[in-house]
Amino acid sequence: MTYCVGLLLNEGMVFLSDTRTNAGVDNISTYRKLFVFAEPGEKLVVIQTAGSLSVTQTVIAKLREAIEQEDSNHPDNILAAPTMLGVAEIVGRVLSDVTADISAKVERMSQHATASMIVGGQRKGGAQRLFMLYPEGNFIEATEDTPYMQIGEHKYGKPILDRVVTPETSLEDARKAAILSMDSTLRSNLSVGLPLDLVITRADTCSIIEETRIEANDPTYQAMSEAWSEALRNSFKSIP
Amino acid sequence: MTYCVGLLLNEGMVFLSDTRTNAGVDNISTYRKLFVFAEPGEKLVVIQTAGSLSVTQTVIAKLREAIEQEDSNHPDNILAAPTMLGVAEIVGRVLSDVTADISAKVERMSQHATASMIVGGQRKGGAQRLFMLYPEGNFIEATEDTPYMQIGEHKYGKPILDRVVTPETSLEDARKAAILSMDSTLRSNLSVGLPLDLVITRADTCSIIEETRIEANDPTYQAMSEAWSEALRNSFKSIP
Repeated sequence: MTYCVGLLLNEGMVFLSDTRTNAGVDNISTYRKLFVFAEPGEKLVVIQTAGSLSVTQTVIAKLREAIEQEDSNHPDNILAAPTMLGVAEIVGRVLSDVTADISAKVERMSQHATASMIVGGQRKGGAQRLFMLYPEGNFIEATEDTPYMQIGEHKYGKPILDRVVTPETSLEDARKAAILSMDSTLRSNLSVGLPLDLVITRADTCSIIEETRIEANDPTYQAMSEAWSEALRNSFKSIP
Repeated sequence: MTYCVGLLLNEGMVFLSDTRTNAGVDNISTYRKLFVFAEPGEKLVVIQTAGSLSVTQTVIAKLREAIEQEDSNHPDNILAAPTMLGVAEIVGRVLSDVTADISAKVERMSQHATASMIVGGQRKGGAQRLFMLYPEGNFIEATEDTPYMQIGEHKYGKPILDRVVTPETSLEDARKAAILSMDSTLRSNLSVGLPLDLVITRADTCSIIEETRIEANDPTYQAMSEAWSEALRNSFKSIP
C-alpha cells in the first residue's frame, strides 16, 4: 500500500509520500510516488500516486512523454493546459484510459488494477489548487473546509490532520503535521514505509522551496518521531 | 460502520463499542453492539459485534436462546462451554452458520452480509482470553505482544493503542486509552457514533466492575475529548 498526503494552505502547499510498494508482504520494493512537472516561476504541477504500480508508472510515463515532445497541442501535455482544472482533467483522462487498458489485460486472471492520484499546483496568475483523482478518472477538489487530500492508507494519519490543519496553518506547521500524520501511519501499518519524499511550494511563486528525500536513518526525522511518541504518551498521562 | 475495541490486561479487560448503525448515510440508527453473558463469579463472556445487523442480531439471539433453555447439553450454550476456547468455537460456528444462511438469501440481490466479533472473558479457574472472530467463523487470539482486538473502523484509533497499551497497563489507563482511541475514530469517521457502551472486568473474579453507557452529552466524556484535542495540539506545538 501507500500513504500520500497533500495540504493546501494560504502560504503554499505541502506534499508528502512514502515509497513502499508491495506485491504480497514477501515482495517489498522502494518506488517514488511523488512527481514534479514544472517550469519554475510559470507552472508547477505535483502528482502523487497510489495503487497498482503498472497503472501509475504508465500514467506518469505518458504524461512525461507528452511534455518531452514539446508540442503544446499534444492533448496529454499538462504543462500546456491553460488552468489547473485542465491539468486535473488531462491526468484523470490518462488515468482512466490506462486503467481501462490494463484492467482488460488483468481481468483474464480475475485481478484488478486501479490507482488514485493527488494532483496539485499552480499556474502563474491562477490560484493554487489541489485535486484527488479516483481510479475512474473523476476528481474532487480541496476546499477551505477540508484543505488536504489523502490517498492510500489514509485513516491512521487523519486524526492529527483533522485537529491541526486549516488554510491558515503556516508552511512550517503543515510540514510538521504531514510528517506526524505519516509517522502515525508508518507506526501502525507495515505496508507504508520510509524513505519519504517531501515537496513544499510557496503560493504565487510557482516554485519549490523544499524538495527532500527523508531516509530511514534521518536523525531529524527520528528525533521528531520519538518526540511525538513521547509527547503523545505525556498527553495521554495528562488526561484526567 | 462500527468501532469496537477489547483490551486484555493483567488486571482485567476493557470493552468499548459505539452504537451507530447505518444503511447508507441517510439511514442512521442506534443499536447496542456489546453484549454480556454471565454467571457472576463463575463465568463471564463479553461479545462485541460489527457488520451486518441482520447477522449479528441473529447470532446474539441464537446464543441467548440457547442459554435461556437452561440445557447444558445444548450445543450453542456458551455458558456451558468448558473453556473460553470452547466459547469462541461456539460463537464462531453460529456466526458462520448464520452468515451462510443470510448470504444465501441476499446473494440473490447481489449483496453480501458479513460480520465480525470480539469475544472475551474468563471462566473460574481459567485464564482471561480475548478472541477476534472473522466473518467465516475462524478466529485469532490476543497475546502479550498484541493485547487488544479491534473490529470495524479500526485504523483511526490504532496509533494511540500501539503507543500506550501493554499487558501491564492499569485498568484505569486502559479505560482512558480505549476512550481516546474511540474519540479519534468518532472525530474522523461519521459512521461511528455516540453513545458508547463500556464494560470493564477484573481478572480472576469473573465479574464486572464497570458497565456504563456514555451518552453524547456526558460531561466527563466531553471534558476528556476536549482535553485530548488540546493535549494533542500542545504536543504538536512542542515538536521541534
